[in-house]
Amino acid sequence: MTMTHTLKVGCYGAKGSYTYEAMEQQFGSKEREESYFPLFEDVVKAVKDGTIDYGVLPIENSSTGGITEVYDLIQKYDCAVVGEQLVKIEHNLLGIPGATLDDIDTVYSHPQGFRQCRPFFNEHRDWTLEPYFSTSRSAERVAEDGRKNQAAVASRTAARLYGLSVLAENIYFNQSNYTRFFIIAPKMEITEDADKITLVISVKHEPGALYHVLGYFFYGGMNMTHLESRPMEGHPFEYFFHIDVKGRIHDPSNAQTLHGLASMCTYFKILGNYPSCKK
Amino acid sequence: MTMTHTLKVGCYGAKGSYTYEAMEQQFGSKEREESYFPLFEDVVKAVKDGTIDYGVLPIENSSTGGITEVYDLIQKYDCAVVGEQLVKIEHNLLGIPGATLDDIDTVYSHPQGFRQCRPFFNEHRDWTLEPYFSTSRSAERVAEDGRKNQAAVASRTAARLYGLSVLAENIYFNQSNYTRFFIIAPKMEITEDADKITLVISVKHEPGALYHVLGYFFYGGMNMTHLESRPMEGHPFEYFFHIDVKGRIHDPSNAQTLHGLASMCTYFKILGNYPSCKK
Repeated sequence: MTMTHTLKVGCYGAKGSYTYEAMEQQFGSKEREESYFPLFEDVVKAVKDGTIDYGVLPIENSSTGGITEVYDLIQKYDCAVVGEQLVKIEHNLLGIPGATLDDIDTVYSHPQGFRQCRPFFNEHRDWTLEPYFSTSRSAERVAEDGRKNQAAVASRTAARLYGLSVLAENIYFNQSNYTRFFIIAPKMEITEDADKITLVISVKHEPGALYHVLGYFFYGGMNMTHLESRPMEGHPFEYFFHIDVKGRIHDPSNAQTLHGLASMCTYFKILGNYPSCKK
Repeated sequence: MTMTHTLKVGCYGAKGSYTYEAMEQQFGSKEREESYFPLFEDVVKAVKDGTIDYGVLPIENSSTGGITEVYDLIQKYDCAVVGEQLVKIEHNLLGIPGATLDDIDTVYSHPQGFRQCRPFFNEHRDWTLEPYFSTSRSAERVAEDGRKNQAAVASRTAARLYGLSVLAENIYFNQSNYTRFFIIAPKMEITEDADKITLVISVKHEPGALYHVLGYFFYGGMNMTHLESRPMEGHPFEYFFHIDVKGRIHDPSNAQTLHGLASMCTYFKILGNYPSCKK
Protein backbone atom coordinates (compact mmCIF):
# COMPACT_ATOMS: atom_id res chain seq x y z
CA MET A 1 0.00 0.00 0.00
CA THR A 2 1.43 3.36 -1.04
CA MET A 3 1.17 5.85 1.82
CA THR A 4 2.62 8.91 0.12
CA HIS A 5 -0.47 9.81 -1.89
CA THR A 6 -4.22 9.67 -1.43
CA LEU A 7 -5.51 6.18 -2.02
CA LYS A 8 -7.18 5.82 -5.41
CA VAL A 9 -9.97 3.26 -5.47
CA GLY A 10 -11.94 2.34 -8.57
CA CYS A 11 -15.33 0.70 -8.45
CA TYR A 12 -17.34 -1.18 -11.06
CA GLY A 13 -20.72 0.50 -11.61
CA ALA A 14 -22.04 3.69 -10.06
CA LYS A 15 -21.98 5.41 -6.68
CA GLY A 16 -24.52 3.66 -4.45
CA SER A 17 -24.23 0.28 -6.20
CA TYR A 18 -23.66 -2.94 -4.27
CA THR A 19 -20.05 -2.84 -5.47
CA TYR A 20 -19.82 0.60 -3.83
CA GLU A 21 -20.98 -0.99 -0.57
CA ALA A 22 -18.21 -3.57 -0.85
CA MET A 23 -15.73 -0.71 -1.26
CA GLU A 24 -17.11 1.00 1.87
CA GLN A 25 -16.81 -2.27 3.81
CA GLN A 26 -13.23 -2.76 2.68
CA PHE A 27 -11.84 0.75 3.07
CA GLY A 28 -14.14 2.17 5.79
CA SER A 29 -13.32 5.76 6.62
CA LYS A 30 -9.86 5.64 4.97
CA GLU A 31 -9.33 8.80 2.95
CA ARG A 32 -9.55 8.04 -0.75
CA GLU A 33 -10.27 9.28 -4.24
CA GLU A 34 -13.07 7.23 -5.77
CA SER A 35 -13.71 6.59 -9.43
CA TYR A 36 -16.35 4.56 -11.25
CA PHE A 37 -16.11 2.39 -14.34
CA PRO A 38 -18.87 1.01 -16.58
CA LEU A 39 -17.09 -2.22 -17.56
CA PHE A 40 -15.28 -4.93 -15.56
CA GLU A 41 -12.35 -4.60 -17.96
CA ASP A 42 -12.04 -0.83 -17.35
CA VAL A 43 -11.49 -1.46 -13.62
CA VAL A 44 -8.84 -4.13 -14.17
CA LYS A 45 -7.04 -2.05 -16.83
CA ALA A 46 -6.99 0.99 -14.51
CA VAL A 47 -5.38 -1.12 -11.77
CA LYS A 48 -2.83 -2.52 -14.19
CA ASP A 49 -1.78 0.85 -15.65
CA GLY A 50 -1.59 2.51 -12.22
CA THR A 51 -4.50 4.93 -12.67
CA ILE A 52 -5.95 3.46 -9.46
CA ASP A 53 -4.36 1.59 -6.53
CA TYR A 54 -7.28 -0.76 -5.93
CA GLY A 55 -10.27 -1.99 -7.89
CA VAL A 56 -13.53 -3.48 -6.56
CA LEU A 57 -15.47 -6.01 -8.65
CA PRO A 58 -18.25 -8.57 -8.13
CA ILE A 59 -16.97 -12.13 -8.40
CA GLU A 60 -19.78 -14.40 -7.26
CA ASN A 61 -23.46 -14.10 -6.50
CA SER A 62 -25.33 -16.61 -4.39
CA SER A 63 -28.17 -16.76 -6.90
CA THR A 64 -26.24 -16.56 -10.17
CA GLY A 65 -22.94 -18.28 -9.35
CA GLY A 66 -19.47 -17.08 -10.27
CA ILE A 67 -18.72 -14.24 -12.65
CA THR A 68 -16.02 -15.96 -14.67
CA GLU A 69 -15.34 -12.92 -16.85
CA VAL A 70 -13.76 -11.23 -13.82
CA TYR A 71 -11.43 -14.20 -13.20
CA ASP A 72 -10.40 -14.06 -16.86
CA LEU A 73 -9.61 -10.35 -16.68
CA ILE A 74 -7.57 -10.67 -13.47
CA GLN A 75 -5.47 -13.34 -15.23
CA LYS A 76 -5.26 -11.45 -18.52
CA TYR A 77 -3.95 -8.26 -16.88
CA ASP A 78 -1.88 -10.16 -14.35
CA CYS A 79 -3.41 -8.43 -11.30
CA ALA A 80 -3.78 -9.85 -7.79
CA VAL A 81 -6.61 -10.37 -5.33
CA VAL A 82 -5.85 -8.57 -2.05
CA GLY A 83 -9.23 -8.83 -0.31
CA GLU A 84 -12.82 -10.07 -0.46
CA GLN A 85 -16.10 -8.68 0.83
CA LEU A 86 -19.61 -10.13 1.09
CA VAL A 87 -22.52 -7.73 0.64
CA LYS A 88 -26.13 -8.63 1.35
CA ILE A 89 -28.41 -7.59 -1.51
CA GLU A 90 -31.45 -5.79 -0.05
CA HIS A 91 -33.62 -3.90 -2.49
CA ASN A 92 -35.89 -1.10 -1.26
CA LEU A 93 -38.37 1.16 -2.98
CA LEU A 94 -36.98 4.71 -2.86
CA GLY A 95 -38.76 8.00 -3.57
CA ILE A 96 -38.09 11.69 -3.05
CA PRO A 97 -38.54 12.95 0.53
CA GLY A 98 -42.21 13.61 1.22
CA ALA A 99 -43.47 11.09 -1.33
CA THR A 100 -45.62 8.19 -0.13
CA LEU A 101 -46.51 4.87 -1.78
CA ASP A 102 -49.80 6.42 -2.93
CA ASP A 103 -47.95 9.04 -4.99
CA ILE A 104 -46.02 6.49 -7.04
CA ASP A 105 -46.98 5.55 -10.59
CA THR A 106 -43.56 5.01 -12.24
CA VAL A 107 -40.65 2.87 -11.00
CA TYR A 108 -37.09 2.72 -12.39
CA SER A 109 -34.83 -0.31 -11.95
CA HIS A 110 -32.39 -2.61 -13.69
CA PRO A 111 -34.63 -5.35 -15.17
CA GLN A 112 -33.17 -7.86 -12.70
CA GLY A 113 -34.42 -5.67 -9.81
CA PHE A 114 -37.97 -5.94 -11.18
CA ARG A 115 -37.60 -9.68 -11.46
CA GLN A 116 -36.20 -10.05 -7.95
CA CYS A 117 -39.03 -7.96 -6.47
CA ARG A 118 -41.79 -9.51 -8.56
CA PRO A 119 -44.12 -10.44 -5.64
CA PHE A 120 -43.99 -6.82 -4.43
CA PHE A 121 -44.78 -5.39 -7.87
CA ASN A 122 -47.58 -7.91 -8.33
CA GLU A 123 -49.34 -5.94 -5.56
CA HIS A 124 -48.96 -2.72 -7.59
CA ARG A 125 -49.96 -3.71 -11.10
CA ASP A 126 -51.04 -0.18 -12.07
CA TRP A 127 -47.47 1.12 -11.79
CA THR A 128 -45.38 1.61 -14.93
CA LEU A 129 -42.08 -0.29 -14.65
CA GLU A 130 -39.29 1.52 -16.50
CA PRO A 131 -36.14 -0.55 -17.07
CA TYR A 132 -32.94 1.41 -16.45
CA PHE A 133 -29.16 0.87 -16.57
CA SER A 134 -28.71 -0.16 -12.92
CA THR A 135 -30.37 0.14 -9.52
CA SER A 136 -27.98 2.88 -8.38
CA ARG A 137 -28.47 4.91 -11.56
CA SER A 138 -32.24 4.51 -11.10
CA ALA A 139 -31.92 6.13 -7.66
CA GLU A 140 -29.77 8.91 -9.16
CA ARG A 141 -32.36 9.56 -11.85
CA VAL A 142 -35.31 9.73 -9.43
CA ALA A 143 -33.32 12.16 -7.26
CA GLU A 144 -32.45 14.33 -10.28
CA ASP A 145 -35.98 14.35 -11.69
CA GLY A 146 -37.35 15.24 -8.23
CA ARG A 147 -40.89 14.08 -9.02
CA LYS A 148 -43.17 12.65 -6.32
CA ASN A 149 -44.65 10.03 -8.67
CA GLN A 150 -41.30 8.36 -9.39
CA ALA A 151 -39.57 5.64 -7.40
CA ALA A 152 -36.45 3.50 -7.80
CA VAL A 153 -35.48 -0.03 -6.74
CA ALA A 154 -32.12 0.34 -4.96
CA SER A 155 -30.18 -0.07 -1.73
CA ARG A 156 -30.31 1.95 1.51
CA THR A 157 -26.83 3.18 0.62
CA ALA A 158 -28.21 4.63 -2.62
CA ALA A 159 -31.03 6.28 -0.62
CA ARG A 160 -28.45 7.91 1.66
CA LEU A 161 -26.16 9.04 -1.18
CA TYR A 162 -28.91 10.49 -3.37
CA GLY A 163 -31.05 11.91 -0.56
CA LEU A 164 -34.04 9.62 -1.16
CA SER A 165 -36.55 8.17 1.34
CA VAL A 166 -37.29 4.48 1.76
CA LEU A 167 -40.98 4.04 0.83
CA ALA A 168 -40.97 0.25 1.23
CA GLU A 169 -38.08 -1.66 2.72
CA ASN A 170 -36.57 -4.97 1.76
CA ILE A 171 -38.93 -5.75 -1.15
CA TYR A 172 -36.60 -8.47 -2.48
CA PHE A 173 -38.19 -11.87 -2.00
CA ASN A 174 -34.92 -13.82 -1.71
CA GLN A 175 -33.87 -12.87 1.79
CA SER A 176 -30.39 -14.34 1.83
CA ASN A 177 -28.76 -13.19 -1.35
CA TYR A 178 -25.13 -12.26 -0.84
CA THR A 179 -22.76 -11.11 -3.52
CA ARG A 180 -19.03 -11.67 -3.16
CA PHE A 181 -16.57 -9.01 -4.29
CA PHE A 182 -12.82 -9.02 -4.91
CA ILE A 183 -10.50 -6.15 -4.09
CA ILE A 184 -7.71 -6.20 -6.68
CA ALA A 185 -4.31 -4.52 -6.90
CA PRO A 186 -1.31 -4.66 -9.27
CA LYS A 187 0.56 -7.00 -6.91
CA MET A 188 -0.22 -9.41 -4.08
CA GLU A 189 -0.34 -7.92 -0.57
CA ILE A 190 -0.04 -10.64 2.02
CA THR A 191 -0.93 -9.21 5.42
CA GLU A 192 -0.58 -10.93 8.81
CA ASP A 193 -4.25 -11.95 8.80
CA ALA A 194 -4.24 -13.41 5.28
CA ASP A 195 -5.91 -16.84 5.56
CA LYS A 196 -7.42 -17.55 2.16
CA ILE A 197 -5.79 -18.38 -1.18
CA THR A 198 -7.51 -18.03 -4.55
CA LEU A 199 -5.99 -19.92 -7.44
CA VAL A 200 -6.82 -20.78 -11.01
CA ILE A 201 -5.53 -24.05 -12.41
CA SER A 202 -6.01 -26.19 -15.43
CA VAL A 203 -5.51 -29.94 -15.71
CA LYS A 204 -5.75 -32.32 -18.63
CA HIS A 205 -9.36 -33.38 -18.88
CA GLU A 206 -8.92 -37.05 -18.14
CA PRO A 207 -10.90 -39.06 -15.64
CA GLY A 208 -9.56 -38.53 -12.15
CA ALA A 209 -7.56 -35.38 -12.89
CA LEU A 210 -9.56 -33.25 -10.50
CA TYR A 211 -9.56 -36.08 -7.97
CA HIS A 212 -5.79 -35.94 -7.86
CA VAL A 213 -5.84 -32.15 -7.59
CA LEU A 214 -8.03 -32.37 -4.53
CA GLY A 215 -5.75 -35.05 -3.13
CA TYR A 216 -3.02 -32.46 -2.69
CA PHE A 217 -5.31 -30.26 -0.60
CA PHE A 218 -6.64 -33.21 1.38
CA TYR A 219 -3.25 -34.69 2.25
CA GLY A 220 -1.84 -31.18 2.75
CA GLY A 221 -4.59 -30.37 5.26
CA MET A 222 -5.84 -27.35 3.31
CA ASN A 223 -9.58 -26.87 3.50
CA MET A 224 -11.27 -25.93 0.26
CA THR A 225 -14.04 -23.34 0.56
CA HIS A 226 -14.95 -22.90 -3.08
CA LEU A 227 -14.51 -24.81 -6.31
CA GLU A 228 -15.84 -24.11 -9.74
CA SER A 229 -14.98 -25.72 -13.03
CA ARG A 230 -15.57 -24.43 -16.49
CA PRO A 231 -14.53 -25.34 -20.00
CA MET A 232 -11.46 -23.64 -21.45
CA GLU A 233 -12.19 -21.63 -24.54
CA GLY A 234 -10.65 -23.26 -27.57
CA HIS A 235 -9.51 -26.30 -25.56
CA PRO A 236 -12.62 -28.47 -25.46
CA PHE A 237 -10.94 -31.19 -23.41
CA GLU A 238 -9.37 -29.03 -20.76
CA TYR A 239 -11.03 -27.36 -17.83
CA PHE A 240 -10.18 -24.35 -15.72
CA PHE A 241 -10.80 -24.59 -12.00
CA HIS A 242 -11.28 -21.62 -9.72
CA ILE A 243 -10.35 -22.74 -6.24
CA ASP A 244 -10.39 -21.06 -2.83
CA VAL A 245 -8.56 -22.79 0.03
CA LYS A 246 -7.78 -21.72 3.56
CA GLY A 247 -4.06 -21.21 4.05
CA ARG A 248 -1.02 -18.98 3.71
CA ILE A 249 1.42 -19.24 0.84
CA HIS A 250 4.28 -18.37 3.23
CA ASP A 251 3.46 -21.32 5.48
CA PRO A 252 6.07 -23.97 4.56
CA SER A 253 3.58 -26.84 4.58
CA ASN A 254 1.04 -24.95 2.44
CA ALA A 255 3.84 -23.86 0.10
CA GLN A 256 4.92 -27.48 -0.38
CA THR A 257 1.34 -28.59 -1.11
CA LEU A 258 0.94 -25.86 -3.72
CA HIS A 259 4.32 -26.70 -5.23
CA GLY A 260 3.33 -30.35 -5.62
CA LEU A 261 0.00 -29.40 -7.11
CA ALA A 262 1.59 -27.02 -9.61
CA SER A 263 3.72 -29.87 -10.99
CA MET A 264 0.64 -31.74 -12.26
CA CYS A 265 -1.22 -28.75 -13.73
CA THR A 266 -1.11 -27.54 -17.31
CA TYR A 267 -1.79 -24.06 -15.91
CA PHE A 268 -1.30 -22.85 -12.35
CA LYS A 269 -1.67 -19.31 -11.02
CA ILE A 270 -2.15 -17.98 -7.50
CA LEU A 271 -4.35 -14.90 -7.79
CA GLY A 272 -3.98 -13.84 -4.16
CA ASN A 273 -3.61 -14.63 -0.45
CA TYR A 274 -5.81 -12.34 1.61
CA PRO A 275 -7.95 -12.15 4.78
CA SER A 276 -11.28 -13.95 4.35
CA CYS A 277 -14.47 -11.94 4.93
CA LYS A 278 -15.82 -13.03 8.31
CA LYS A 279 -19.57 -12.56 7.51
CA MET B 1 -43.60 -38.19 -23.73
CA THR B 2 -47.38 -37.99 -24.08
CA MET B 3 -48.37 -38.49 -27.71
CA THR B 4 -52.13 -38.15 -27.35
CA HIS B 5 -52.16 -34.36 -27.19
CA THR B 6 -50.21 -31.47 -28.68
CA LEU B 7 -46.92 -31.01 -26.88
CA LYS B 8 -47.02 -28.06 -24.51
CA VAL B 9 -43.66 -26.35 -24.10
CA GLY B 10 -43.02 -23.41 -21.77
CA CYS B 11 -40.11 -21.09 -22.16
CA TYR B 12 -38.50 -18.59 -19.80
CA GLY B 13 -38.58 -15.08 -21.26
CA ALA B 14 -40.13 -13.94 -24.53
CA LYS B 15 -40.47 -15.21 -28.07
CA GLY B 16 -37.13 -14.65 -29.84
CA SER B 17 -35.03 -14.88 -26.66
CA TYR B 18 -31.97 -17.12 -26.44
CA THR B 19 -34.07 -19.51 -24.34
CA TYR B 20 -36.47 -19.63 -27.29
CA GLU B 21 -33.57 -20.67 -29.51
CA ALA B 22 -32.76 -23.48 -27.10
CA MET B 23 -36.38 -24.63 -27.39
CA GLU B 24 -36.14 -24.59 -31.21
CA GLN B 25 -32.92 -26.62 -31.07
CA GLN B 26 -34.50 -29.17 -28.75
CA PHE B 27 -37.92 -29.63 -30.35
CA GLY B 28 -37.15 -28.68 -33.98
CA SER B 29 -40.24 -28.87 -36.16
CA LYS B 30 -42.24 -30.95 -33.65
CA GLU B 31 -45.77 -29.60 -33.41
CA ARG B 32 -46.25 -27.80 -30.15
CA GLU B 33 -48.11 -25.17 -28.16
CA GLU B 34 -45.66 -22.60 -26.83
CA SER B 35 -46.04 -20.44 -23.77
CA TYR B 36 -43.77 -17.86 -22.16
CA PHE B 37 -43.10 -17.08 -18.52
CA PRO B 38 -41.47 -14.04 -16.92
CA LEU B 39 -39.89 -15.88 -13.96
CA PHE B 40 -37.80 -19.06 -13.64
CA GLU B 41 -40.19 -20.24 -10.92
CA ASP B 42 -43.26 -19.83 -13.18
CA VAL B 43 -41.74 -22.28 -15.69
CA VAL B 44 -40.90 -24.90 -13.07
CA LYS B 45 -44.31 -24.56 -11.37
CA ALA B 46 -46.09 -24.96 -14.72
CA VAL B 47 -44.15 -28.19 -15.37
CA LYS B 48 -44.94 -29.47 -11.89
CA ASP B 49 -48.69 -28.78 -12.05
CA GLY B 50 -49.00 -30.21 -15.58
CA THR B 51 -49.87 -26.94 -17.36
CA ILE B 52 -46.95 -27.70 -19.68
CA ASP B 53 -45.13 -30.92 -20.60
CA TYR B 54 -41.67 -29.38 -20.86
CA GLY B 55 -39.94 -26.24 -19.64
CA VAL B 56 -36.82 -24.56 -21.04
CA LEU B 57 -34.53 -22.56 -18.73
CA PRO B 58 -30.98 -21.16 -18.78
CA ILE B 59 -28.70 -23.00 -16.39
CA GLU B 60 -25.17 -21.80 -17.09
CA ASN B 61 -23.52 -19.03 -19.03
CA SER B 62 -19.90 -19.14 -20.11
CA SER B 63 -19.34 -15.58 -18.93
CA THR B 64 -21.45 -15.51 -15.76
CA GLY B 65 -21.23 -19.10 -14.49
CA GLY B 66 -24.09 -21.25 -13.21
CA ILE B 67 -27.57 -19.99 -12.48
CA THR B 68 -28.03 -21.68 -9.14
CA GLU B 69 -31.57 -20.41 -8.66
CA VAL B 70 -32.68 -22.78 -11.42
CA TYR B 71 -31.04 -25.77 -9.70
CA ASP B 72 -32.84 -24.81 -6.48
CA LEU B 73 -36.21 -24.60 -8.21
CA ILE B 74 -35.81 -27.95 -9.97
CA GLN B 75 -35.13 -29.52 -6.56
CA LYS B 76 -37.87 -27.60 -4.77
CA TYR B 77 -40.57 -28.68 -7.25
CA ASP B 78 -39.08 -32.14 -7.67
CA CYS B 79 -38.81 -31.90 -11.47
CA ALA B 80 -36.30 -33.69 -13.71
CA VAL B 81 -33.79 -32.68 -16.36
CA VAL B 82 -34.55 -34.45 -19.66
CA GLY B 83 -32.23 -32.58 -22.02
CA GLU B 84 -29.65 -29.83 -22.45
CA GLN B 85 -28.91 -27.37 -25.25
CA LEU B 86 -26.03 -24.95 -25.87
CA VAL B 87 -26.87 -21.70 -27.64
CA LYS B 88 -24.28 -19.26 -28.95
CA ILE B 89 -25.05 -15.69 -27.91
CA GLU B 90 -24.71 -13.44 -30.96
CA HIS B 91 -26.11 -9.95 -30.65
CA ASN B 92 -27.03 -7.96 -33.74
CA LEU B 93 -28.37 -4.47 -34.29
CA LEU B 94 -31.90 -4.79 -35.68
CA GLY B 95 -34.09 -2.13 -37.30
CA ILE B 96 -37.27 -1.99 -39.33
CA PRO B 97 -36.95 -3.05 -42.99
CA GLY B 98 -35.63 -0.17 -45.07
CA ALA B 99 -33.81 1.50 -42.17
CA THR B 100 -30.03 1.97 -42.41
CA LEU B 101 -27.42 2.65 -39.73
CA ASP B 102 -27.61 6.38 -40.64
CA ASP B 103 -31.30 6.51 -39.67
CA ILE B 104 -30.71 5.25 -36.13
CA ASP B 105 -30.66 7.55 -33.11
CA THR B 106 -32.28 5.38 -30.40
CA VAL B 107 -31.41 1.81 -29.39
CA TYR B 108 -33.31 -0.51 -27.05
CA SER B 109 -31.66 -3.39 -25.16
CA HIS B 110 -31.40 -5.16 -21.84
CA PRO B 111 -28.60 -3.26 -20.02
CA GLN B 112 -26.35 -6.32 -20.31
CA GLY B 113 -26.68 -6.14 -24.11
CA PHE B 114 -25.32 -2.59 -24.05
CA ARG B 115 -22.46 -3.72 -21.84
CA GLN B 116 -21.63 -6.70 -24.05
CA CYS B 117 -21.61 -4.55 -27.19
CA ARG B 118 -19.77 -1.58 -25.63
CA PRO B 119 -17.01 -1.33 -28.30
CA PHE B 120 -19.69 -1.11 -31.02
CA PHE B 121 -21.65 1.61 -29.21
CA ASN B 122 -18.45 3.53 -28.51
CA GLU B 123 -18.39 4.13 -32.28
CA HIS B 124 -21.90 5.64 -32.12
CA ARG B 125 -21.79 7.94 -29.12
CA ASP B 126 -24.56 10.22 -30.41
CA TRP B 127 -27.16 7.43 -30.12
CA THR B 128 -29.51 7.35 -27.14
CA LEU B 129 -29.32 3.98 -25.36
CA GLU B 130 -32.68 3.02 -23.84
CA PRO B 131 -32.55 0.16 -21.35
CA TYR B 132 -35.41 -2.31 -21.75
CA PHE B 133 -36.69 -5.55 -20.17
CA SER B 134 -34.83 -7.97 -22.47
CA THR B 135 -33.24 -8.18 -25.90
CA SER B 136 -36.21 -10.03 -27.39
CA ARG B 137 -38.72 -7.54 -25.97
CA SER B 138 -36.56 -4.74 -27.38
CA ALA B 139 -36.92 -6.28 -30.85
CA GLU B 140 -40.68 -6.63 -30.32
CA ARG B 141 -40.95 -2.97 -29.31
CA VAL B 142 -38.98 -1.68 -32.30
CA ALA B 143 -41.19 -3.78 -34.62
CA GLU B 144 -44.37 -2.48 -32.95
CA ASP B 145 -43.27 1.17 -32.98
CA GLY B 146 -42.27 0.84 -36.67
CA ARG B 147 -39.96 3.89 -36.60
CA LYS B 148 -36.89 4.11 -38.82
CA ASN B 149 -34.80 5.82 -36.12
CA GLN B 150 -35.16 2.96 -33.61
CA ALA B 151 -33.01 -0.16 -33.31
CA ALA B 152 -32.76 -3.11 -30.92
CA VAL B 153 -29.89 -5.33 -29.74
CA ALA B 154 -31.12 -8.91 -30.26
CA SER B 155 -30.59 -12.22 -32.03
CA ARG B 156 -31.17 -13.19 -35.68
CA THR B 157 -34.04 -15.34 -34.45
CA ALA B 158 -35.67 -12.22 -32.97
CA ALA B 159 -35.16 -10.45 -36.33
CA ARG B 160 -36.91 -13.30 -38.14
CA LEU B 161 -39.79 -13.52 -35.66
CA TYR B 162 -40.48 -9.79 -35.49
CA GLY B 163 -39.81 -9.01 -39.18
CA LEU B 164 -36.76 -6.81 -38.54
CA SER B 165 -33.61 -6.31 -40.62
CA VAL B 166 -30.05 -6.86 -39.40
CA LEU B 167 -28.35 -3.43 -39.63
CA ALA B 168 -25.08 -4.61 -38.09
CA GLU B 169 -24.27 -8.23 -37.41
CA ASN B 170 -22.52 -9.85 -34.50
CA ILE B 171 -21.76 -6.68 -32.54
CA TYR B 172 -20.98 -8.65 -29.37
CA PHE B 173 -17.27 -8.44 -28.60
CA ASN B 174 -17.03 -11.79 -26.80
CA GLN B 175 -17.15 -14.15 -29.76
CA SER B 176 -17.46 -17.44 -27.91
CA ASN B 177 -20.19 -16.92 -25.38
CA TYR B 178 -22.42 -19.96 -25.07
CA THR B 179 -25.33 -20.31 -22.69
CA ARG B 180 -26.42 -23.74 -21.51
CA PHE B 181 -30.11 -24.56 -21.12
CA PHE B 182 -31.99 -27.37 -19.40
CA ILE B 183 -35.14 -28.96 -20.72
CA ILE B 184 -37.19 -30.04 -17.71
CA ALA B 185 -40.19 -32.34 -17.25
CA PRO B 186 -42.22 -33.70 -14.31
CA LYS B 187 -40.32 -37.01 -14.44
CA MET B 188 -37.05 -38.36 -15.77
CA GLU B 189 -37.08 -39.61 -19.37
CA ILE B 190 -34.10 -41.83 -20.02
CA THR B 191 -33.77 -42.39 -23.74
CA GLU B 192 -31.38 -44.79 -25.51
CA ASP B 193 -28.90 -41.99 -26.18
CA ALA B 194 -28.84 -40.64 -22.61
CA ASP B 195 -25.14 -40.28 -21.69
CA LYS B 196 -24.99 -37.51 -19.09
CA ILE B 197 -26.14 -37.44 -15.47
CA THR B 198 -26.77 -34.27 -13.48
CA LEU B 199 -26.84 -34.60 -9.72
CA VAL B 200 -26.94 -32.37 -6.69
CA ILE B 201 -25.27 -33.59 -3.53
CA SER B 202 -24.26 -32.24 -0.19
CA VAL B 203 -21.47 -33.48 2.06
CA LYS B 204 -20.35 -32.44 5.52
CA HIS B 205 -17.92 -29.61 5.06
CA GLU B 206 -14.83 -31.27 6.44
CA PRO B 207 -11.44 -31.37 4.77
CA GLY B 208 -11.33 -34.08 2.13
CA ALA B 209 -15.08 -34.57 1.83
CA LEU B 210 -15.16 -33.53 -1.80
CA TYR B 211 -11.98 -35.50 -2.44
CA HIS B 212 -13.77 -38.67 -1.35
CA VAL B 213 -16.80 -37.79 -3.47
CA LEU B 214 -14.63 -37.52 -6.56
CA GLY B 215 -12.95 -40.80 -5.62
CA TYR B 216 -16.21 -42.62 -6.37
CA PHE B 217 -16.30 -41.19 -9.88
CA PHE B 218 -12.59 -41.82 -10.44
CA TYR B 219 -12.62 -45.46 -9.30
CA GLY B 220 -16.01 -45.96 -10.97
CA GLY B 221 -14.60 -44.68 -14.29
CA MET B 222 -17.18 -41.93 -14.63
CA ASN B 223 -15.84 -38.78 -16.26
CA MET B 224 -16.93 -35.54 -14.65
CA THR B 225 -17.73 -32.72 -17.09
CA HIS B 226 -18.90 -30.05 -14.66
CA LEU B 227 -18.59 -29.31 -10.98
CA GLU B 228 -19.70 -26.34 -8.99
CA SER B 229 -19.83 -25.85 -5.27
CA ARG B 230 -21.78 -23.31 -3.33
CA PRO B 231 -22.65 -22.67 0.29
CA MET B 232 -25.93 -24.10 1.62
CA GLU B 233 -28.28 -21.44 2.87
CA GLY B 234 -28.62 -21.62 6.63
CA HIS B 235 -25.93 -24.34 6.88
CA PRO B 236 -22.70 -22.37 6.86
CA PHE B 237 -20.50 -25.45 7.09
CA GLU B 238 -22.16 -27.52 4.42
CA TYR B 239 -21.82 -27.18 0.68
CA PHE B 240 -24.02 -28.17 -2.22
CA PHE B 241 -22.32 -29.55 -5.30
CA HIS B 242 -23.80 -29.51 -8.77
CA ILE B 243 -22.14 -32.27 -10.71
CA ASP B 244 -22.40 -33.50 -14.30
CA VAL B 245 -20.84 -36.86 -15.14
CA LYS B 246 -20.92 -38.97 -18.27
CA GLY B 247 -22.85 -42.17 -17.70
CA ARG B 248 -26.20 -43.98 -17.56
CA ILE B 249 -28.02 -44.66 -14.33
CA HIS B 250 -29.27 -47.98 -15.76
CA ASP B 251 -25.69 -49.16 -16.36
CA PRO B 252 -24.98 -51.55 -13.44
CA SER B 253 -21.45 -50.22 -12.85
CA ASN B 254 -22.59 -46.57 -12.89
CA ALA B 255 -25.51 -47.47 -10.63
CA GLN B 256 -23.17 -49.05 -8.10
CA THR B 257 -20.86 -46.01 -8.14
CA LEU B 258 -23.80 -43.69 -7.53
CA HIS B 259 -25.13 -45.96 -4.79
CA GLY B 260 -21.79 -45.89 -2.99
CA LEU B 261 -21.56 -42.14 -3.33
CA ALA B 262 -25.08 -41.64 -1.98
CA SER B 263 -24.11 -43.44 1.22
CA MET B 264 -21.60 -40.74 2.18
CA CYS B 265 -23.73 -37.72 1.27
CA THR B 266 -25.98 -35.73 3.59
CA TYR B 267 -28.09 -34.95 0.50
CA PHE B 268 -28.15 -36.82 -2.80
CA LYS B 269 -30.48 -36.27 -5.73
CA ILE B 270 -30.19 -37.26 -9.38
CA LEU B 271 -31.85 -34.51 -11.41
CA GLY B 272 -31.71 -36.32 -14.72
CA ASN B 273 -29.99 -38.65 -17.20
CA TYR B 274 -30.23 -37.26 -20.71
CA PRO B 275 -28.38 -36.99 -24.06
CA SER B 276 -25.53 -34.46 -23.90
CA CYS B 277 -25.57 -31.59 -26.38
CA LYS B 278 -22.93 -32.40 -29.01
CA LYS B 279 -21.90 -28.78 -29.81
